[in-house]
Amino acid sequence: MALLTRITGPRDLDRLGPEQLDQLAGEIRTFLVDAVSKTGGHLGPNLGVVELTIALHRVFDSPRDKVLFDTGHQSYVHKLLTGRQDFAGLRARGGLSGYPSRAESEHDVIENSHASTVLGWADGLAKANQLLGREDQVVAVIGDGALTGGMAWEALNNIAAAKDRPLVIVVNDNERSYAPTIGGLASHLATLRTTDGYERFLARSKDLLNRTPVVGKPLYETLHGAKKGIKDVIAPQGMFEDLGLKYVGPIDGHDIAALESALARAKRFGGPVIVHCLTEKGRGYQPAVQHEADRFHAVGVIHPDTGLPVSASGADWTSVFGDEMVRLGRERPDVVAITAAMLQPVGLGRFAEEFPDRVYDVGIAEQHGAVSAAGLATGGLHPVFAVYATFLNRAFDQVLMDVALHRCGVTFVLDRAGITGTDGASHNGMWDMSILQVVPGLRIAAPRDADQLRAQLREAVGVDDAPTVVRFSKGAVGPAVPAVGAVGGMDVLREPGLEEGERPDVLLVSVGALAPMCLEIADLLDKQGISATVVDPRWVKPVDEALPSLADRHRVVVTVEDNVRAGGVGSAIAQALRDAGVDVPLRDFGIPPRFLEHASRKEVLAEIGLTAPDIARQVTGLVAKLDGRYPDERGAEHTTEPAGD
Amino acid sequence: MALLTRITGPRDLDRLGPEQLDQLAGEIRTFLVDAVSKTGGHLGPNLGVVELTIALHRVFDSPRDKVLFDTGHQSYVHKLLTGRQDFAGLRARGGLSGYPSRAESEHDVIENSHASTVLGWADGLAKANQLLGREDQVVAVIGDGALTGGMAWEALNNIAAAKDRPLVIVVNDNERSYAPTIGGLASHLATLRTTDGYERFLARSKDLLNRTPVVGKPLYETLHGAKKGIKDVIAPQGMFEDLGLKYVGPIDGHDIAALESALARAKRFGGPVIVHCLTEKGRGYQPAVQHEADRFHAVGVIHPDTGLPVSASGADWTSVFGDEMVRLGRERPDVVAITAAMLQPVGLGRFAEEFPDRVYDVGIAEQHGAVSAAGLATGGLHPVFAVYATFLNRAFDQVLMDVALHRCGVTFVLDRAGITGTDGASHNGMWDMSILQVVPGLRIAAPRDADQLRAQLREAVGVDDAPTVVRFSKGAVGPAVPAVGAVGGMDVLREPGLEEGERPDVLLVSVGALAPMCLEIADLLDKQGISATVVDPRWVKPVDEALPSLADRHRVVVTVEDNVRAGGVGSAIAQALRDAGVDVPLRDFGIPPRFLEHASRKEVLAEIGLTAPDIARQVTGLVAKLDGRYPDERGAEHTTEPAGD
Repeated sequence: MALLTRITGPRDLDRLGPEQLDQLAGEIRTFLVDAVSKTGGHLGPNLGVVELTIALHRVFDSPRDKVLFDTGHQSYVHKLLTGRQDFAGLRARGGLSGYPSRAESEHDVIENSHASTVLGWADGLAKANQLLGREDQVVAVIGDGALTGGMAWEALNNIAAAKDRPLVIVVNDNERSYAPTIGGLASHLATLRTTDGYERFLARSKDLLNRTPVVGKPLYETLHGAKKGIKDVIAPQGMFEDLGLKYVGPIDGHDIAALESALARAKRFGGPVIVHCLTEKGRGYQPAVQHEADRFHAVGVIHPDTGLPVSASGADWTSVFGDEMVRLGRERPDVVAITAAMLQPVGLGRFAEEFPDRVYDVGIAEQHGAVSAAGLATGGLHPVFAVYATFLNRAFDQVLMDVALHRCGVTFVLDRAGITGTDGASHNGMWDMSILQVVPGLRIAAPRDADQLRAQLREAVGVDDAPTVVRFSKGAVGPAVPAVGAVGGMDVLREPGLEEGERPDVLLVSVGALAPMCLEIADLLDKQGISATVVDPRWVKPVDEALPSLADRHRVVVTVEDNVRAGGVGSAIAQALRDAGVDVPLRDFGIPPRFLEHASRKEVLAEIGLTAPDIARQVTGLVAKLDGRYPDERGAEHTTEPAGD
Repeated sequence: MALLTRITGPRDLDRLGPEQLDQLAGEIRTFLVDAVSKTGGHLGPNLGVVELTIALHRVFDSPRDKVLFDTGHQSYVHKLLTGRQDFAGLRARGGLSGYPSRAESEHDVIENSHASTVLGWADGLAKANQLLGREDQVVAVIGDGALTGGMAWEALNNIAAAKDRPLVIVVNDNERSYAPTIGGLASHLATLRTTDGYERFLARSKDLLNRTPVVGKPLYETLHGAKKGIKDVIAPQGMFEDLGLKYVGPIDGHDIAALESALARAKRFGGPVIVHCLTEKGRGYQPAVQHEADRFHAVGVIHPDTGLPVSASGADWTSVFGDEMVRLGRERPDVVAITAAMLQPVGLGRFAEEFPDRVYDVGIAEQHGAVSAAGLATGGLHPVFAVYATFLNRAFDQVLMDVALHRCGVTFVLDRAGITGTDGASHNGMWDMSILQVVPGLRIAAPRDADQLRAQLREAVGVDDAPTVVRFSKGAVGPAVPAVGAVGGMDVLREPGLEEGERPDVLLVSVGALAPMCLEIADLLDKQGISATVVDPRWVKPVDEALPSLADRHRVVVTVEDNVRAGGVGSAIAQALRDAGVDVPLRDFGIPPRFLEHASRKEVLAEIGLTAPDIARQVTGLVAKLDGRYPDERGAEHTTEPAGD
């Protein structure tokens, strides 16, 4: 790391010669494999952009020029070149974020980790530069996968409209999003690769491989294979030029000199220009390059030599869902699956193997996932759209106006719901149970354990005239939480243990995976002499009809959910109680409406007071206030944050 | 109407010869001008698709084949040809919907009036046909304006991926969305027009004009003007073909025989194919064709000969906003405006005239409107994005993740918020105050009158480190509602009229334009001996800090809002009261969470019980229950619909 450790900012790159730049690239790859194998993180994408990031920072002058990364998980190299080389705490509390972070560096602009946004940001920044007479440059790096998102198209259409507004778009084309990129665009990009520049890229690759310090799988064969069957065309840059965008490329994305030359030309152009770079995801790290499914897109802690996980993980929510989908697929030929470019991460891999004709990868295009699901349902099928909870926000209008308004039987399976932690603010799936409350007819299931997930998925897929949602957490699924009874459609998880006729103090309404925490709260209350019933509504929308009368038999209602408090399940239950004229005091616990910094899920929950001891203490205070045992000011105390902001 | 009245379904078209089809087209135009001038509605778009719709129904066999219209306001001709010729009640309660409606006809599939959805629907339906082995056809009609929306791109990318899945896309290219279509795509389509087919279209146009019964402005000059300055290209269909889509066209969209020939070829093709049709919005109706701004996109009641409005409308919310924007623009050079293809309808016309460099029409692309606003704000400007409330749903993720997470000073002005009525379910702006509750840091203003709109717009534009929202109703703005006092940041609109020290019964919290209704409720309560304070919080998010203690001085809190009840302002206030330990009973009135059929705003409000007498009666019952004056079952009665569904 002789060179890397001396780079404290982008301008330190200026004094390095060609040989040194190649050496630096090698040092960065070694650093990344070493560091990320210890912490986990996005390895493959960053190994692919080493030379590109070096070239960007040599040609452009950040932070005056704005260097923007789409879906910022490929910003590790950028971090290393802008004064951030302590990766020991990557994605951990207090350590470096896994995405760009304005709090970390003036070189970071966009923190959002949802895909396809960068061209819109760039368009806005370029417009501001033009209007304010600034000559600063804006350069946006976007992957071919992210170009499948509709936002990218909207932005390209706007960018192309202003021929005199400088803006450099770098298409980082590795033929993949998470998995290989799909659709007509992918074919078009493949066509672009059939030019002289591409041939030179292939020729050069053999040579390059000998110079990269960690030697990977022969690049030539990998890329050469992708080329087969592609027809020749006269003007490969057609699609971009048809829109009015100047096209430069394709450029070998691992040739620093070629990259610098192309970027410098683009910088001088004085209008919108696309620089098409070909890169290899996972480049230089053999275990990544050989991993066809995702090229080590994101990894946990791995052994740096073999790339194998250091600790095997147990059963998780995703695989429970994936296995049950396969069984459902065997039983019901009308069940089809949709993914937005994340077949494996959402657990649809096995379904796709067994039913390849019944799974649709729509690209990074949640809007299309939802609206095409409405079409599939209207055509007589039952689509299951499996997507991370936070990404469903992209399709809110389509869930409302296409699926719900048309009463389509579509099941949305929301993985990574609630606090996910280490990926930071934009990956927490904490919004869904609030915004979906307004969707007429839509039903939401929040299973508490693996058995419930299997059962509720089946119930959801059984609804053919309304949208259904099944949402669950990230990671390992806990042990089964048995029901001890039922009220209406709700499972009773714990009876208050009182004599017949005695009025229990607290009705604890547990949502989803928080059931064990709610049982722990009840035990803690028990020690304070406070009796509690714990129920799991299973379906949290609509509010179970039996809930108001059950609530009326208690002195206090407490709701606990892994979702933002504003407009969440607690709010919905409070409204149902008001509508039923049940004015029993209610307290709703959940996530405060603010963006949460990256840390482990456990650390985040502790930070926001969503733990059994915190909640038990507050409920104890509330009951004491009702008893008149404590003065108001102690009873009414709130240690969790209020909803307002 | 000799021919039209004999058409009871699409198959009646089969027996008509070429002369009769032209006659039928003429009859339909005369019918449309006559009928829509009496009721108001979307005139220009439907005059443009007369021949196209006839040809579609001759070539395809609806309802077995699915004929889909994007943004269904151009479905009037389709309605006339599928057994619906009673237009007397168009858009009125009990009459025909202004959009397709599955309740009206088996020939209607998509009811959603949000743009750019049709290709996604078509993709889903085509996938279902393929999987289920059906040979039914799917044909989707989309305007060039709607192609600027990201959903269209996502769908094209997916459609192009399956070369063997039949799907016919008809691009209805009239060079306009609401206003002329913008961006690189518009230029590309303009390029496509420079082919032989286009030349033939121009040559034929002169002849066609002589045959249409209502003669419009010379078409030749209009279209010829648009052609100037366009460079020739070798393969004009490049962009679509680069994606792998077969391209047919351009076709003269007013030549029935040419259309039928092209559509029949497309139908036989056996894969995805684009038929590019050139049409003239407003065709055949001189007042429309001569109206450059929007070609009579949507009209109120007009005189059929002159096209002038029968009754002039007074001051409306939109123009109050538009006028104040001009003043703000003069004072603050950093204020810029954004519209999603609706410059005039959202009131930005005058701003655009005075500051043409400071207004950005992004196309039908709300996502890009929001994300580019984040870029503009980061670049040092203050963008005001004016958009219909219902269309902001499209940009929810961008408001949350790009604008709010990055603390950008962007002001969203939501026009047509609340019940709009005649446009039906998907135009009511009833979701915004619920879904935006979860957005950290975002502030929402709901001005009650013109003065407040002006003042709160200025307050909003004064916030530079967080998103702000100003939402107001459709149509005429009512008289000023003066404040009689203030508590915290809230305006007191009415004091309860009690002696010092007496506890008033009801705190009425009024949201936005419902202030006069709330004052009426207070008067009605007064007659029942119930005292009421009326406050307008002005900013409804966050909840004013002074509200809980004010609520605590009353016996009941009642909230009234023109927004869906689930998670709305009432819910937020209820949560704030719980957090403050104020357990005063609260009742929240608003819109039930269901889709509302088209009718006048007044009729809809009456139907859902959002009227002063309805609310006053319920509040009277509640107070009586607290007094013990009535038995529970009467007091707890709810005539409005509950939140659950």
